[in-house]
Amino acid sequence: MQPLRDTVYTHAEMQALLAPRSVVIIGASARPGSFGERTLKHLRASFTGPVYLVNPQYAAIGDDKCHPDLQSLPEVPDCAVIAVPREKVHALVAQCVAQGIPGVLIFASGYAETDLEERQAEQQALADLVRGTRTRLVGPNCIGFANYAAGMRLSFAEFPACETGAGAIGIVSQSGALAMALAQSSHQGTAVSHALACGNMSDVDVADLISYLVHEPSCQAIVCLMEGHEHPARVEQAARRAMAANKPLIVHKLGKSPKGVYAAWRHTASTAGTHDSWKALFARSGAVLVEHFESIMEVAGFFAKAPRARGRGTAILSTSGGACILAADSAAAHGVDLPQANAANAKVLADAIPDFGYALNPYDTTAQVISDPASFTACASALMSDPAFDALVMPQIQAYDAATPRIATLNAQAGLHGKIACNIWLTQWMGGPGYAQAAASPHVALFRSPDTCFWTLAQWQERQQAMDAQPEPERLALESQP
Amino acid sequence: MQPLRDTVYTHAEMQALLAPRSVVIIGASARPGSFGERTLKHLRASFTGPVYLVNPQYAAIGDDKCHPDLQSLPEVPDCAVIAVPREKVHALVAQCVAQGIPGVLIFASGYAETDLEERQAEQQALADLVRGTRTRLVGPNCIGFANYAAGMRLSFAEFPACETGAGAIGIVSQSGALAMALAQSSHQGTAVSHALACGNMSDVDVADLISYLVHEPSCQAIVCLMEGHEHPARVEQAARRAMAANKPLIVHKLGKSPKGVYAAWRHTASTAGTHDSWKALFARSGAVLVEHFESIMEVAGFFAKAPRARGRGTAILSTSGGACILAADSAAAHGVDLPQANAANAKVLADAIPDFGYALNPYDTTAQVISDPASFTACASALMSDPAFDALVMPQIQAYDAATPRIATLNAQAGLHGKIACNIWLTQWMGGPGYAQAAASPHVALFRSPDTCFWTLAQWQERQQAMDAQPEPERLALESQP
Repeated sequence: MQPLRDTVYTHAEMQALLAPRSVVIIGASARPGSFGERTLKHLRASFTGPVYLVNPQYAAIGDDKCHPDLQSLPEVPDCAVIAVPREKVHALVAQCVAQGIPGVLIFASGYAETDLEERQAEQQALADLVRGTRTRLVGPNCIGFANYAAGMRLSFAEFPACETGAGAIGIVSQSGALAMALAQSSHQGTAVSHALACGNMSDVDVADLISYLVHEPSCQAIVCLMEGHEHPARVEQAARRAMAANKPLIVHKLGKSPKGVYAAWRHTASTAGTHDSWKALFARSGAVLVEHFESIMEVAGFFAKAPRARGRGTAILSTSGGACILAADSAAAHGVDLPQANAANAKVLADAIPDFGYALNPYDTTAQVISDPASFTACASALMSDPAFDALVMPQIQAYDAATPRIATLNAQAGLHGKIACNIWLTQWMGGPGYAQAAASPHVALFRSPDTCFWTLAQWQERQQAMDAQPEPERLALESQP
Repeated sequence: MQPLRDTVYTHAEMQALLAPRSVVIIGASARPGSFGERTLKHLRASFTGPVYLVNPQYAAIGDDKCHPDLQSLPEVPDCAVIAVPREKVHALVAQCVAQGIPGVLIFASGYAETDLEERQAEQQALADLVRGTRTRLVGPNCIGFANYAAGMRLSFAEFPACETGAGAIGIVSQSGALAMALAQSSHQGTAVSHALACGNMSDVDVADLISYLVHEPSCQAIVCLMEGHEHPARVEQAARRAMAANKPLIVHKLGKSPKGVYAAWRHTASTAGTHDSWKALFARSGAVLVEHFESIMEVAGFFAKAPRARGRGTAILSTSGGACILAADSAAAHGVDLPQANAANAKVLADAIPDFGYALNPYDTTAQVISDPASFTACASALMSDPAFDALVMPQIQAYDAATPRIATLNAQAGLHGKIACNIWLTQWMGGPGYAQAAASPHVALFRSPDTCFWTLAQWQERQQAMDAQPEPERLALESQP
C-alpha cells in the first residue's frame, strides 16, 4: 500500500476526464443491450465531439469505423471508456496510461466490493497503474456519469436528459443508481448540471468530484451521496473549498447502521465510518447534512436558488387556515422566526385580506385570492419588500391550472427584491399542475414537506451566521486554494 | 352552555346528512362563481338523485325550477346546503329543523373563528337549534364534503373526482382545504372513499365523522387531520371504535406550537390542547399518530392494504446496492428486523442473483433484472412465500416503463401469499411511470421516504401486538358498540 493522497485533484487535472472533447469506447459493440452498444447510443444522443470505437472483432459498427486498438486512433482522445469484462481491464488501462490518455472510466464490477482478497489486489493494481501519471481514473464498478453542462452522458445506463439552468444542482454519488434517481427530478422541472458517479473510487473519488464542482460555474449547489471514504481529511478539504467558494454542499451519508455499513462494503467497498464522526466533519466544514434521502434535492434546490441569508424572519402566506397552522407548527419546531410586517405593509395586508382571514403572520388570505388574484400580488409584494423578511413561504393546497399564476407572482416578487420564496407542495397530487413550474422557477424553492422547508430555512440562517463568524484570514486562505 | 355530548352520533343518525338521497340548495344562484352556482355544478357532475333549488329571487335557474322556500318542495330532502350569507343562516336552519330535514350543511364563515363574543354566541345558537332534534348539522365555516362511495361532491369548492376501490382511504378534516389537498392524491392512483370536512364543528365533529367511517365498508383506513376538540373523550371513543373494528385510524394533529394553536383558534375556533395529551390519547386508543403531514396518505395507504402483521421480518429486494444501504439504515433506525430466508428459498435467491450482487437480506439483485425479468419474479416469489417475512420492500430507483412489470410482480406475489409489498419511490421523478400503478395496486403500498416506510412497518407490528394483547372482554365490548 502506498501512502494516501493528501489533496484532492485540481479541476484542470480532471477536466479531460469529466468534460472530454473526444471519447473512445474500448469494447465497442454492435450487440444490442451490450455495454458498448448502449454507451455509444447515449453518447450519440448527447455529445457532438469525436467518438472513436475500439474492438478488434469489428471493422465497422453501423456507419462508424471500428479500430483494432488504441494505437490506431487518429488522435489521443481525452477519455477512454472501458466497456470490457474485468479480466481484460488491467491491460487496457496500462495501454491508456502508456498512450497518455488523460481520462479513463471503468464499468466492470467484481473488484474490492466482492470482499475477495485477490479482487481487492486487482483494484489496487489499477490504482497503482495511474498513480503519478496524468491519467485520471473513475471506477471500477462505476456506471459512468453525465455532464449536462458539457452536453454529454457517458454511461451504459439510462441517465435522464437533464436541463441545466438557473439553480442547477450538481450530483456526486458513489452509487450510480442513486445518482440517476436524483437526476430524474429533471423530469419535473429541477435543473441538473452534473450527475457524477464514482463507484469503487480506486483513483478519483467523491472528494475530488465535490472539488471539481466547486469550480464549475454551471453548478449552483452540490449534492453528495456518500457511502464512505478511507481518507476523511480529503472530504473535509473538499467541503471547506465549497464553503470558501460559497457553493452550498448538501450531503446524505449512507451506511449508518451495521447492516448498512456492511452493505456499503459489499456495494462499493466503502468503509462507512461512524455516523457521528461524519456529522462532526460536515458540521465544522460548512456542509449541510440531510438525514432523509428523499429531501436532498429539495434542500439543494433551495440552496441553489437562495441569496445570502440576512438574519431576518420568514413570512407565511396561505390561502388556507389549516395550512397556516401546519406551517406555524413547523416554523416553531425548527426555530424559524415569524415576525410581523412594518406598519405600511401591515396596512396593505389588512386591506387585501378579508376579515374572515388573518392579516398577521402566518397570513391567511383565504380562498378569496382565487377570485381576486390582485390581492395575492399585493400581499406577496408587501411581504417580499418588507425588511422584516428574508423568505416567503406559500403552502400549495391544490394543484390546478388557476394556481400557477400565483407561483409566477411569488417568483417575480422574490426576484425583484433579491429574496427567496418557498412553495410547500401540500397537495398530494405529485407532479400536478404547478409542480414543475415551481421546481424550475429561479426564485422559488419547491418542498414536499413543511418540516423540510423550515428545517432548511433554519440551516440557511445558521450556515450564514457560521460563515460570517469565520475569521477573515481563514476565509481568504480557503478562497485562494486552487 | 349546555352539557357536552358524551357519545358520538351513530352511523344511522348521520347517514341522511353524509349520504343523502336528495339535496336542496338554499341560496341557489345563477351567478357564475357564487357558492350556490358552484355547488349545483359539482352536484350535477357527481350525483344522480333529486336536487332542489330554493331562492325567492328566481322562478328557475337554467332548466331547473327554483322554489321560493322550503315549504314549497315536493318532498322533505335528506340534506339542505345553506349557501347564503351569515346573517340569513339562523332563520333557515330553524326552518330546516321545523321541516324535519335530517341533514344541514352551512358554508358561511364569520362565527366563533372571528374571536368575537357575539359571533361565538351566534354559533352556539345554531348548535342549540339542532340539539335534541333529528337534524344533524355540519359547519358553519365548512366548505362541504365529498362522499365518493355514494358518488357525490357537496361543496362549492373543487373536490377532485376520486376513485374508490381496493385500499380506499376515508379523510376527515376540520380544514376543508387540507382535506382536498389529501384527496388530490387520487390523481396519482390513490383510492379515496370520502373527504369529509367539518369546519367549526358546532354539531357533527371529527369524532362523529371518524365513527361514521368505521361503519363504512368502502373505507379501508381513516385519515384524520385534527386541529382540536373540546371533548377529547369523544375522540377517544371514536378511536377505540376504529380499533375494535380493526379499521386503522391515522391522525395528524395540527396546532402543536403557540402560533399554531392560535392559528387553529382563528381558523375553526378549535382549542388545540397540548400535543402530549393528544399523543397519549391516540397511543392508548390504537390510532397511529403521524407527525409529518406529507406522510399521512402514504401511511394510510399502507394500513388500508396491509393484512394482519404476524410478527415476522421484512425483506429488502433492490436492483441497486446504494438503495440496499439506504433501506438497511432505515430498517435499523426504526427497529425493523431483516432476517434471512430459509434454506430452500436462500438457494433460489442465490441462483437468481449474480455474484456481484448480494444474496442475503438486504438482497441486491443488481440491474441484471432489467435484462432478466424472470430472475426478479423468482426472488419476489421466494421472499413472499418464505415464513420469515411479512413484508417485502422494493426501492424504486428509476421511473421508466420497463420497471412497471416489476411492480405488477410485487403486487401479484404479495396478493398470492396474503402479504404486503412496499415500493419506496426513491426516484425524484414524482408521478413518473409506475407511480400511480404502485399507488393503485391493492397489495403494494407506495412510500416516497425510506424512513416513513420502515417507521410504518414498525407501527404496523407494534399496533398488532397491542391489539393482540388486549383482553378479550374489552375487545368484545368495543366491537358490540353501535
